[in-house]
Amino acid sequence: MKLVCEKDKLLKAINSVVKGASSKTTMPILEGIFIQTNDNDVKLTTYDLEIGIEYIIDAKVEKQGSTVVNAIMFSEIIRKLPDTEINISLNEKNLLEIECEGSLYKLATMNPEEFPDLPKINIENSITLEQKNLKNMIRKTIFGVSIEENRPIFTGCLFEIEDNKLNVVAVDGFRLAWKSNFLENPSNNFKAVIPGKTLNEVNKIILDSYDLIKIGISKNQALFEMENCKIVTRLLDGEFLNYKNVIPENWETRIRVNKKDLQECFERISLISFSSMEKEKKYPVKLNIEIGKITISCTNQTGDAKEELYISTEGKNLEVGFNPKYFLDALKVIDDEEIYVDFGSNISPCVIRPIENSDYTYMILPIRMKD
Amino acid sequence: MKLVCEKDKLLKAINSVVKGASSKTTMPILEGIFIQTNDNDVKLTTYDLEIGIEYIIDAKVEKQGSTVVNAIMFSEIIRKLPDTEINISLNEKNLLEIECEGSLYKLATMNPEEFPDLPKINIENSITLEQKNLKNMIRKTIFGVSIEENRPIFTGCLFEIEDNKLNVVAVDGFRLAWKSNFLENPSNNFKAVIPGKTLNEVNKIILDSYDLIKIGISKNQALFEMENCKIVTRLLDGEFLNYKNVIPENWETRIRVNKKDLQECFERISLISFSSMEKEKKYPVKLNIEIGKITISCTNQTGDAKEELYISTEGKNLEVGFNPKYFLDALKVIDDEEIYVDFGSNISPCVIRPIENSDYTYMILPIRMKD
Repeated sequence: MKLVCEKDKLLKAINSVVKGASSKTTMPILEGIFIQTNDNDVKLTTYDLEIGIEYIIDAKVEKQGSTVVNAIMFSEIIRKLPDTEINISLNEKNLLEIECEGSLYKLATMNPEEFPDLPKINIENSITLEQKNLKNMIRKTIFGVSIEENRPIFTGCLFEIEDNKLNVVAVDGFRLAWKSNFLENPSNNFKAVIPGKTLNEVNKIILDSYDLIKIGISKNQALFEMENCKIVTRLLDGEFLNYKNVIPENWETRIRVNKKDLQECFERISLISFSSMEKEKKYPVKLNIEIGKITISCTNQTGDAKEELYISTEGKNLEVGFNPKYFLDALKVIDDEEIYVDFGSNISPCVIRPIENSDYTYMILPIRMKD
Repeated sequence: MKLVCEKDKLLKAINSVVKGASSKTTMPILEGIFIQTNDNDVKLTTYDLEIGIEYIIDAKVEKQGSTVVNAIMFSEIIRKLPDTEINISLNEKNLLEIECEGSLYKLATMNPEEFPDLPKINIENSITLEQKNLKNMIRKTIFGVSIEENRPIFTGCLFEIEDNKLNVVAVDGFRLAWKSNFLENPSNNFKAVIPGKTLNEVNKIILDSYDLIKIGISKNQALFEMENCKIVTRLLDGEFLNYKNVIPENWETRIRVNKKDLQECFERISLISFSSMEKEKKYPVKLNIEIGKITISCTNQTGDAKEELYISTEGKNLEVGFNPKYFLDALKVIDDEEIYVDFGSNISPCVIRPIENSDYTYMILPIRMKD
């Protein structure tokens, strides 16, 4: 194997695939990047048996071949080389030689035949959308996936196509985040639950741009396809929550509030609330809604906190307890200036929605207050 | 106690003192900020029994008093409040009330009488210099202090006044960093060894500005004095190395090299060298100096690395081994474009000096190579 390629292109490819390499494994081959030449390009692949990432870049290929090299070491050396052409070749001792100006590095390699094949995917359904749209949908939901492995289905996000609309939904037993988006091209209805870990990686690789990304779904796998780059992942097995059924349709108390003001109140009050939350006892914050005013308060051994906001309110007065983290997670990702927060009773969930966009819904279960 | 002050001033004071509060202690009072009013100002103090920091800001004092409040909690709440006036008062339950617009926080306090007094210092000698000068002197030496506690004197930097020149020196048994600076005002000769930990804190507080800082030395203590802010610290006991005697006066081999080029070579080669350095075995890098060229190389089980630079050389050819970290530490802080590196034999130290400034000297002991 012998090739010449540009440092910046190679580095972009490495940065995309390197996260797919396993970091803790008893199989060193999975810590590697599989490098494989083609006529006028070279393909880099990583695969930790859950997520596989492929990236193809142009290269002057002087001799065909393939090898596997430790992903971290290869990535750090390429990163630090000067910004020019890099010569890469496999020598007779099976060391990967990396040559660039006065620098020559020779890295131990692994047998490319031991590198596992990425799963073959028979795509049954697919959609195409702009990368910035997908990025926004992931960002607004991913924090809501469950971190508890006892119900694996909830460690991923539901991707549901329904009447040319894509719904992405995360739920963890305490809250639910649902972002939807109309698709430009018609598609069949389908459902798949994609692991949160995969979506985090996809989110790092895709750009905040109008470039397209195609999501293809087979029975057990999903494929994310961009120019030069492919990501394959297994899907999660099981029945996802019938999420539309759990979101209350009516409210008894509604507030309309500036998102940033509410976020700042919760950020401050969390300092008191979280200072004790880490220990066994939970100190929820108390929301008191009266006509024209919301008071958020918290008391524990660290101190007392009280935040007042003058806002527009509708419906009944209410006193209800929440974990402030669940409010903050959503407030941080909402880009709109004003939101509605709709409440039922002090034991029913509240629902947050931007007042001008009906494409985002976030629901939180309350905490029962002692007094 | 009751006072009103501006958030930005209060936050600046807190940011300066908060690092002086102890984080791991069996004495909760040392985790606190001691707040004490005066006629038209308020003084914040932290003291972990090694380093004490005081900061005074203007305030409208409505009722005199003092208290101690947890440093981290106070600092985080003030940081998140809106950028306006903040009302602070001690209520009848001994809670510190912090009020700002719609926010009211009440924090548990501690008895101010339990807060230890900062040591009284009888200054015997002092110097004054610009903060940016001191910052530069600390930055160029601090990384060289020993982290081994078995010879405590070397965990600090020597501050030596000699013929109106300030020498700051760090040494750890493998290398030595020496920065000197002429003083504008005459001063007595003296020596003191200031703990590295203190200098790190001082470095965070002082600005890269022409503002002055006064360093006062007593028998066992040092005092750093700026506008509004004072830092006291104990000095380290013991005899510092007679550093001038250990720096070789002559060289057998001299290279003159672009600092950035050499730094980049060492950064790349460290990837190979360090990948094994963490384990028990040390893999030094080998420097080969021939006429007009330096070759830096390293071989271990990860791979081979070789870097070549065409440079100007004088004297004998040489092959010598070094820990590349010791080169990198110095190259990172040297601001000059070109440096000399002077070598004796392969068992004597090398000395790095900027070619245009004689005020910085850095010496490294070699590692004996096996072959």
